[in-house]
Amino acid sequence: MDFEPSARSKDYLERVKRFMREHIEPAEPRYHQEIQAAARAGDWKTWPVSQVMEDLKARAREQGLWNLFLPDEKLAPGLSTLEYAPIAEETGRSLMAPEVFNCNAPDTGNMEVLWKYGTDAQKERWLEPLLAGDIRSVFCMTEPDVASSDATNMEATAVVEGDEIVLNGAKWWSTGLGHPRAKVTIFMARTPDTGADRHHQHSMVLVPLDAPGVTIRRMLPVFGDYDAPHGHGEVHFENVRVPVSHFIGGPGMGFEIAQGRLGPGRIHHCMRCIGAAERALELMIDRGMNRTAFGKPLLNLGGNRERVADARIAIDQARLLTMYAAWKMDEVGALGAMTEISAIKVVAPNVLQRIVDDAMQIHGGAGLSMDTPLSAFFAQARTLRLADGPDEVHKGVIARIELARRGFSRR
Amino acid sequence: MDFEPSARSKDYLERVKRFMREHIEPAEPRYHQEIQAAARAGDWKTWPVSQVMEDLKARAREQGLWNLFLPDEKLAPGLSTLEYAPIAEETGRSLMAPEVFNCNAPDTGNMEVLWKYGTDAQKERWLEPLLAGDIRSVFCMTEPDVASSDATNMEATAVVEGDEIVLNGAKWWSTGLGHPRAKVTIFMARTPDTGADRHHQHSMVLVPLDAPGVTIRRMLPVFGDYDAPHGHGEVHFENVRVPVSHFIGGPGMGFEIAQGRLGPGRIHHCMRCIGAAERALELMIDRGMNRTAFGKPLLNLGGNRERVADARIAIDQARLLTMYAAWKMDEVGALGAMTEISAIKVVAPNVLQRIVDDAMQIHGGAGLSMDTPLSAFFAQARTLRLADGPDEVHKGVIARIELARRGFSRR
Amino acid sequence: MDFEPSARSKDYLERVKRFMREHIEPAEPRYHQEIQAAARAGDWKTWPVSQVMEDLKARAREQGLWNLFLPDEKLAPGLSTLEYAPIAEETGRSLMAPEVFNCNAPDTGNMEVLWKYGTDAQKERWLEPLLAGDIRSVFCMTEPDVASSDATNMEATAVVEGDEIVLNGAKWWSTGLGHPRAKVTIFMARTPDTGADRHHQHSMVLVPLDAPGVTIRRMLPVFGDYDAPHGHGEVHFENVRVPVSHFIGGPGMGFEIAQGRLGPGRIHHCMRCIGAAERALELMIDRGMNRTAFGKPLLNLGGNRERVADARIAIDQARLLTMYAAWKMDEVGALGAMTEISAIKVVAPNVLQRIVDDAMQIHGGAGLSMDTPLSAFFAQARTLRLADGPDEVHKGVIARIELARRGFSRR
Amino acid sequence: MDFEPSARSKDYLERVKRFMREHIEPAEPRYHQEIQAAARAGDWKTWPVSQVMEDLKARAREQGLWNLFLPDEKLAPGLSTLEYAPIAEETGRSLMAPEVFNCNAPDTGNMEVLWKYGTDAQKERWLEPLLAGDIRSVFCMTEPDVASSDATNMEATAVVEGDEIVLNGAKWWSTGLGHPRAKVTIFMARTPDTGADRHHQHSMVLVPLDAPGVTIRRMLPVFGDYDAPHGHGEVHFENVRVPVSHFIGGPGMGFEIAQGRLGPGRIHHCMRCIGAAERALELMIDRGMNRTAFGKPLLNLGGNRERVADARIAIDQARLLTMYAAWKMDEVGALGAMTEISAIKVVAPNVLQRIVDDAMQIHGGAGLSMDTPLSAFFAQARTLRLADGPDEVHKGVIARIELARRGFSRR
Repeated sequence: MDFEPSARSKDYLERVKRFMREHIEPAEPRYHQEIQAAARAGDWKTWPVSQVMEDLKARAREQGLWNLFLPDEKLAPGLSTLEYAPIAEETGRSLMAPEVFNCNAPDTGNMEVLWKYGTDAQKERWLEPLLAGDIRSVFCMTEPDVASSDATNMEATAVVEGDEIVLNGAKWWSTGLGHPRAKVTIFMARTPDTGADRHHQHSMVLVPLDAPGVTIRRMLPVFGDYDAPHGHGEVHFENVRVPVSHFIGGPGMGFEIAQGRLGPGRIHHCMRCIGAAERALELMIDRGMNRTAFGKPLLNLGGNRERVADARIAIDQARLLTMYAAWKMDEVGALGAMTEISAIKVVAPNVLQRIVDDAMQIHGGAGLSMDTPLSAFFAQARTLRLADGPDEVHKGVIARIELARRGFSRR
Repeated sequence: MDFEPSARSKDYLERVKRFMREHIEPAEPRYHQEIQAAARAGDWKTWPVSQVMEDLKARAREQGLWNLFLPDEKLAPGLSTLEYAPIAEETGRSLMAPEVFNCNAPDTGNMEVLWKYGTDAQKERWLEPLLAGDIRSVFCMTEPDVASSDATNMEATAVVEGDEIVLNGAKWWSTGLGHPRAKVTIFMARTPDTGADRHHQHSMVLVPLDAPGVTIRRMLPVFGDYDAPHGHGEVHFENVRVPVSHFIGGPGMGFEIAQGRLGPGRIHHCMRCIGAAERALELMIDRGMNRTAFGKPLLNLGGNRERVADARIAIDQARLLTMYAAWKMDEVGALGAMTEISAIKVVAPNVLQRIVDDAMQIHGGAGLSMDTPLSAFFAQARTLRLADGPDEVHKGVIARIELARRGFSRR
Repeated sequence: MDFEPSARSKDYLERVKRFMREHIEPAEPRYHQEIQAAARAGDWKTWPVSQVMEDLKARAREQGLWNLFLPDEKLAPGLSTLEYAPIAEETGRSLMAPEVFNCNAPDTGNMEVLWKYGTDAQKERWLEPLLAGDIRSVFCMTEPDVASSDATNMEATAVVEGDEIVLNGAKWWSTGLGHPRAKVTIFMARTPDTGADRHHQHSMVLVPLDAPGVTIRRMLPVFGDYDAPHGHGEVHFENVRVPVSHFIGGPGMGFEIAQGRLGPGRIHHCMRCIGAAERALELMIDRGMNRTAFGKPLLNLGGNRERVADARIAIDQARLLTMYAAWKMDEVGALGAMTEISAIKVVAPNVLQRIVDDAMQIHGGAGLSMDTPLSAFFAQARTLRLADGPDEVHKGVIARIELARRGFSRR
Repeated sequence: MDFEPSARSKDYLERVKRFMREHIEPAEPRYHQEIQAAARAGDWKTWPVSQVMEDLKARAREQGLWNLFLPDEKLAPGLSTLEYAPIAEETGRSLMAPEVFNCNAPDTGNMEVLWKYGTDAQKERWLEPLLAGDIRSVFCMTEPDVASSDATNMEATAVVEGDEIVLNGAKWWSTGLGHPRAKVTIFMARTPDTGADRHHQHSMVLVPLDAPGVTIRRMLPVFGDYDAPHGHGEVHFENVRVPVSHFIGGPGMGFEIAQGRLGPGRIHHCMRCIGAAERALELMIDRGMNRTAFGKPLLNLGGNRERVADARIAIDQARLLTMYAAWKMDEVGALGAMTEISAIKVVAPNVLQRIVDDAMQIHGGAGLSMDTPLSAFFAQARTLRLADGPDEVHKGVIARIELARRGFSRR
């Protein structure tokens, strides 16, 4: 057992850290001003392509700090999930960083799906511009009318008619839908005529966002924040027609692909949460030691220092569990690491939410406004407790496996 | 001991409930659409006076459901704090209701201050139009540059020069600042030349918002939501001059008035939290029983029913403690009820935050958006854990009193 | 609404307080030494009748501070549940006090049952000596081989054969079994031949503890403490025969009586928890202010003062909810107050457990030993979270009622 | 980074597991009966040497499963802390196992101290019989009259007079004092005449328990349980005289040795907690699936399965953090791993306490008695939250380091 990261992982982490310090941190205020002004000014349709972002992307790509998430040595540095994890943590400290390194959700998951299951034509048309950061993508799974935590509830349909697939259904919380460069979505739906078992009745289909019948109804705020320029949206598909070549992995492969897609994605999400939590803790300490009340720095009042300790303990535990999940996934695959992946999916966002909540308390009103990243971190944590499966579903999975280990095998 | 409310309290509660069911609930969707559209359309300066609201106000006033918070039998029905408490709870179920009944913060507290400490001229100029609902008001206490949880940190100044008071300072989280009808603020500041002890060096001054030198810098979002049409704002005072007749209660009376102001206000806030919590619980139950996953209503999965029970237990305890605080305040004054007032100030917003958090979890993404009142309730709870003293300060007060009771009297 | 106790309640409370200060507190050390020495010296069979206790009982009876729990004006002062509640709280501060006032479980519940449902002969034989404090009694319900939280699991039988009832079954956690004066138990069992619905198949039967076939197998420690001189025990009934006149309320009445029995009993238990919690908090404060580490009283370190505040808040809420439950039970009966009774049954023991846990932490090792009442309070709290229905069952009841209120009526 | 244990660690773990399954598990009931009977029968002075234990010890020693904790390749297998950690976890599943493998506290810490700092004579007289399991030892640090969480409060004295050391002071919670084979203690005390700085005024002195002036006053129960045959006791030293050769490491070295002593000891304690938590979880699952209420296995009711998941998540996180602390301690020493060691000292006992509490709830009354190991595990967890530094002190250490990392270096 050895907790030392690999030389390659440490090297990339060092370079990413330097890039963040030298290039991203100084650019953040300008970027957020730009984004917030655009967001306030009116409709999401006018959200601009940010030149600040484009410049940073170009520079990151130049330095080889690009697509670090992808475990392919030809298309990317080819880090393992375990090696990439500390880098995901580092980028989680900044709200803009993941996009700078072309490592932001849902593009990462979409790129992985295309990389693993895409045809050459699909790769050429969609994976290449995504890897280049020229376009962005969307993932359409959650539906407004059913409890989407149970994927078998899904009502959208992808019906084969001749050499076309006809798509119908309403989707929401489709992340990335608001980005001015969003061009394509992966649409998940039932393909009712497969005759297959209940885990092979769903498909994933590539759909250009400008296809006729695709209508973005609205963007959805989280606690009032639209998370520009990506944003979560509601989008309806009415008799949208695409060629059958747009199936990913063929009809009926939706669940299988979804399972594989979620493993690394959850590791990334959780590591970013941990980076965000570290930053929230730093903000809490700095504010708490620099402001005074009743003759003492705020942090020396009441139970505040215990909260700092609780945060350190929670972060370190969450990080180790996520790294362990990454290692296990690399070693035995997402299925064998299911307990660990579900566990971090519960732990990391909750740790982040609690630490941010404490940090807000130390910041007073400033912590609730957008003058610090805290409120965006809070929205991120709160959203993640639902996205990719709510806490309760993951706990159900963990308990089921645990009971099976003791020989109690039926739910 | 008798837990039965007074006949008068029950009667008004019944009438308020009927009014809410018959008039407010049907108007809510239209009102929120109007407000959200205005809020999204651009700057707070364009937030409109809502005709929906004005019509409801007129009707409530006609029915005598007006200024119910004010314990003055000439100007209002004259309910005691204890009698008004269940009505405050009821109005807390709706985000728009408190204004309908002219019972919304910070106007209630400001009206009380004027009612208790105002001169006849002040009453005529400000209290009357406030009681009539013709204008709205603001309370300026918190400052951006210091930890305002310790009121002695206050840096704003109100200096007497001849027959004028010269005001300087920056304030933020000044509630109500965005309302199109906001006309006046109570400005709290140090009056350095009083020569008095440290609890008599602060004053409250009435300042028209259109006075030269008053500049509203910006409105402040809570988690991205501007809470239109009231909103919290940042406002700067630069050499603002008002006549000395604008002191409330005279120079140096700021702390004393603030203490008295906060007692009933905290009861109201807490009872509204309890009403909001009841509604959140209802939403949670309805959604949780009407949506299905894994073959069962959501509420029958995992620990969800325990969460319902926990919510019921927490709400009932918070309500009883708040009612008890109201009773004690009515009996012996805010000073004698300090433990109880601080206690509810900690309990009620935290109970609301936790229940809303659970209700969000049952709602999935819908709970985070603005399609339900949950996200606004969450912002309300989170804000209240800081406003009028953060949790930690109130716990400090409670502990100090507790130790004194055991004979340990100095911190 | 009025939180002032009745004059009668205040008067008795005052007298009980004085009695505790003047007579019980000074006797406690001697009593506990006696008991612990006896408990350590060997088998429970040798637990002695304590002369300290007998003297105090005689004195309390003389002063009319006797059977205060019983709402019968002829046999006792006749306080309502609400009036008795603060007295139960006060006696909960001392581990020995309830017996001194002849107000200890399970005798109180057993006396109530006999008072409400007993025949004249039963009253004469058992109720009178119990009311006189001459004998003690036991309640046999929980069974070792089934989950007794579901009363329909009960396996013990009470079969009518001619004019006798034949009793069989094993019971444990039968409180009071170890007392040297325990003479009788109420035995609850299935009476299979009633032909009644599932809520009328159980009976309560009076059984002298010296009846042939009754065997006390062992006493059961809680965390290693046998709770002498009462104690919880395991007792087996093998073909025990008693006359049919020993049914309480007739065969098949077991559930109905049990329901009624538990209401007041739970109020008493919870109020005693609150008294114990108050005492634990006092011990915590005294120790925490009188011991010093790192140059400060312990209570001024870290989050300890917040723990004091949390304790105060939790106690006050628990007390109010219990008083409210008592009031509601007095007004509309145990059935109408089911939510409240279940709620306090969850809240009060958990509040006590947490506060004692915190107080232990301030006491260091002393808090774990028997040098303070803390460890006995802890055992009391931990036991009560299971006795009379585990927390989870009560939460289930609350949730069921809550859902029914919203129109979702089937579990 | 690699989470795979070393081959050597895996091999020993496998052998220890087999030994536990084949030899310890079958012997447990007999051993506990023996011990409990002895404990109940009377005074600790009569606690017997258990033949069951002696036989198991002999067998473990034969198999080379002996002194596994000691990182010395000549005297023991020589595992690193990290390699030993999983073995400590495994032995933590059984209350008797640590002694079987000669790996129980406080002997392990005492042996380490002698191994690192002892003179040849000290090693010959005390280390050898300890390594052989022929005698047991005690560690006397905590004092009844001061808050021992601040070691500078220590009042006991070790004064050099000629070639003797004169020892005075009262100690309690001295673990192992009740063991019939306990022969020696390490006594920690101030040596006031050293003239050294405040971290060099304390000494450790070896004291035979039969030295004149050493009086064991009593054994101390934890929640009523005396933890036979080891037990925590109170022992007084009155003018005890030992030769100056009994100083360990010389006068004034007490703090330095104590620091080093606590590192590995805390790892062991925490890993044993994790093993105990795993066993508690297994007991909870088995009981919860084998007992039925309301028509379902207990575990399928309410939030019980979420509790299983919470337990799994908490255990896995605690284990990883403890392994990480062990690794860091092996790599950079206890000082460099101070945050991690303090963190696990807070986490592991709290995790154990909470899981045992949940498991008790599933067991009903049985969980509180001594019919399962749960109540002993609970006492172990509760004690450990105070022993070797209470939670609050460790959180203070973590916060101090954390603030220093951000440049805020003085409290």
